[in-house]
Amino acid sequence: MKNIPFSAARLWADLHEVARIGGTPRGGCNRQALTDLDGEARAWLVERATAYGCTLHLDPFGNMALLRPGRDASRKPVAFGSHLDTQPTGGKFDGVLGVLAGLEVLRALHEAGAETEAPLMLVNFTNEEGARFSPPMMGSGAAMGIFPPEQVLGTTDAAGVTFGDELARIGWRGFETLPEMAAFLELHIEQGPVLEREGKSVGIVTHALAQRWYDVVVEGAEAHGGSAMAGRRDALVAASHLIAAVEEIAIAARAPDGELGRGTVGRIMVHPDSRNVAPGRVWFSVDTRHGDPAQLDAMGDALRARAAEIARARDVAITVSDFWHSPPIRFDATLLGHLRAAAARRGIAAKEMPTGIGHDAVYVARRVPTAMIFVPCHGGLSHNEAESITPEWAEAGLLVLADAILEAAQ
Amino acid sequence: MKNIPFSAARLWADLHEVARIGGTPRGGCNRQALTDLDGEARAWLVERATAYGCTLHLDPFGNMALLRPGRDASRKPVAFGSHLDTQPTGGKFDGVLGVLAGLEVLRALHEAGAETEAPLMLVNFTNEEGARFSPPMMGSGAAMGIFPPEQVLGTTDAAGVTFGDELARIGWRGFETLPEMAAFLELHIEQGPVLEREGKSVGIVTHALAQRWYDVVVEGAEAHGGSAMAGRRDALVAASHLIAAVEEIAIAARAPDGELGRGTVGRIMVHPDSRNVAPGRVWFSVDTRHGDPAQLDAMGDALRARAAEIARARDVAITVSDFWHSPPIRFDATLLGHLRAAAARRGIAAKEMPTGIGHDAVYVARRVPTAMIFVPCHGGLSHNEAESITPEWAEAGLLVLADAILEAAQ
Repeated sequence: MKNIPFSAARLWADLHEVARIGGTPRGGCNRQALTDLDGEARAWLVERATAYGCTLHLDPFGNMALLRPGRDASRKPVAFGSHLDTQPTGGKFDGVLGVLAGLEVLRALHEAGAETEAPLMLVNFTNEEGARFSPPMMGSGAAMGIFPPEQVLGTTDAAGVTFGDELARIGWRGFETLPEMAAFLELHIEQGPVLEREGKSVGIVTHALAQRWYDVVVEGAEAHGGSAMAGRRDALVAASHLIAAVEEIAIAARAPDGELGRGTVGRIMVHPDSRNVAPGRVWFSVDTRHGDPAQLDAMGDALRARAAEIARARDVAITVSDFWHSPPIRFDATLLGHLRAAAARRGIAAKEMPTGIGHDAVYVARRVPTAMIFVPCHGGLSHNEAESITPEWAEAGLLVLADAILEAAQ
Repeated sequence: MKNIPFSAARLWADLHEVARIGGTPRGGCNRQALTDLDGEARAWLVERATAYGCTLHLDPFGNMALLRPGRDASRKPVAFGSHLDTQPTGGKFDGVLGVLAGLEVLRALHEAGAETEAPLMLVNFTNEEGARFSPPMMGSGAAMGIFPPEQVLGTTDAAGVTFGDELARIGWRGFETLPEMAAFLELHIEQGPVLEREGKSVGIVTHALAQRWYDVVVEGAEAHGGSAMAGRRDALVAASHLIAAVEEIAIAARAPDGELGRGTVGRIMVHPDSRNVAPGRVWFSVDTRHGDPAQLDAMGDALRARAAEIARARDVAITVSDFWHSPPIRFDATLLGHLRAAAARRGIAAKEMPTGIGHDAVYVARRVPTAMIFVPCHGGLSHNEAESITPEWAEAGLLVLADAILEAAQ
């Protein structure tokens, strides 16, 4: 099973061919889940994978599995893939790279007439982006039993159309359960600047950060812009101090392995929202993440402690309430070993790193031994029409993925 | 002219009678400019003032003057008053106190058969609040030639109805110019907490703060909430540091007389406004005020300097642009002398202070010798249905106003 000629050139050509399905004038892609364009990309994939000897399995959420038999039919398939849907102003690589690299693995094996012990399975999960139907990673979450089926099928888009109806309309509602997987490998662009900055061609993703999201409400008193500063209980000034603290808390949350936290305030609303009134009430969101759950909890404690300090000092009330929680995920040690070995053998510069971002693999990992491979993207830019990678990075990801698949399927 | 029995009890009764016109279940008042209720309050006022020997003059903006002849018809009238319109959830005292205290002065003089040398004139300015038709202080601004007549008459409310049409509809569009004033005195609630906190019954308002309003835009880079903190260019964290600085700059702007500045950030918008994206762009407003124009300019310089510092330190771009400017207004020295003398003679605890808030008197002062008197309001609460004052504060304001009117009209 040595010397299969996996072709980065063919992968690169496929990436640009699929990018035309929903391609935007600015070079990006708008191929949102369960649109006609999503259906077109799915058909494109099935046409090719079946030509390479695969059979389609389709589940009730539109998740697609393209199964290639192995020598040992009693073994569960080694699965790999990602998603074909994009953001409304998405790029050509987010998700698609992982699916099309998997397709190239199937094609190269087919053309070489090579067999694996375990079956192989290329997966395209429905609605990873969550742009049209929220939340994201809906298909993988449903397949792994994390979301109840009725909830997923009943989810509506902005126009009030349900996920289930749209899935049926585009012709991709199935009736099977996906075959049980022995392992799952997802290749994806990093969507961050670290690999490019450090000159690495692949990231071996060891774990997914745990997340805690909060709602923060600051209640002070409205004051006219002409009133004296003394005695003001300005909710926005208090909030500003706490927003600055979120950054400090994330940077200070250093785990024994040196990993730092992440802290983000992405949304804020003030009341009464008038130029000449110091706000009496402010709401903002806080998103905290860390690879070490104990550090993550400590970040929450620090947030509440700083909130209490600021509330006392400024005579305002601050409430910090839990909004959402996602547990930490450790990827599978055996699969990580395969990825390390592949990178070493191929002489590809690799970095071990966590993913701070949710991916289908993070849900799959709750039920199946799983690992992820990152490749760099320019400037960390993603969810953007200007998202870009080099052919060399695509090749590095393809080769490490292919080698790990073959190793797992022995 | 001594010992005219100005009655705070009658003033108090009038305040509560007028408060029923547009009275709200929570004890406030909703009597917005140019509504039927505004017309009803105007009619109430004219009926009484004419009974006390006054004649109505009405200008094209609905500003009302109730003129009481003096012994010397060649002298310009000594004017006083404020406004009868309220915010949608306004209180019973903002503006109304100044009009009804003036009415009590006219009534007490009428009942005592007392004459003044100069004529007296009670004024009710149209649309001081600017709640229904923006901007505020529209009637006094128009009367003083600050706003062009066509602009005022053509201003539309949220329903698209013009100021001019509504004024005609409620029957209060006039065709005269208001009689020229020798002086103008406005009694008003403080709308701030200073007098109550310091145990003073009146404020002698020496000047109006100059104001400079700014737009601030911070441009960084969007980053996913899962991306590493290193290398982030978070526009909201940068904005938070600058918002905190606005407060510091206001408190540090101390004039030689000890007066401090005011700095307020009342509005903020972030982009893309998503929980798990560090904002790439933030806009916020800054309202700065100071009695000393040099200090106000220095506050603007400090704001720009801090913005540049933060921009450098955080690799973001910050632009601070001028939005609006209002010059400082010094009230008339002679009238201020009358107010000081009246408070001293009556044994009323007075404090000299600026107004940080716009009032009709601030526009009138550009053309006419003017001064203002404040009385405390509980907790500084105003533009609120719970706005409240004590009968004793109302009496203190009435007596200082009345004495100063009589002094000016000698």
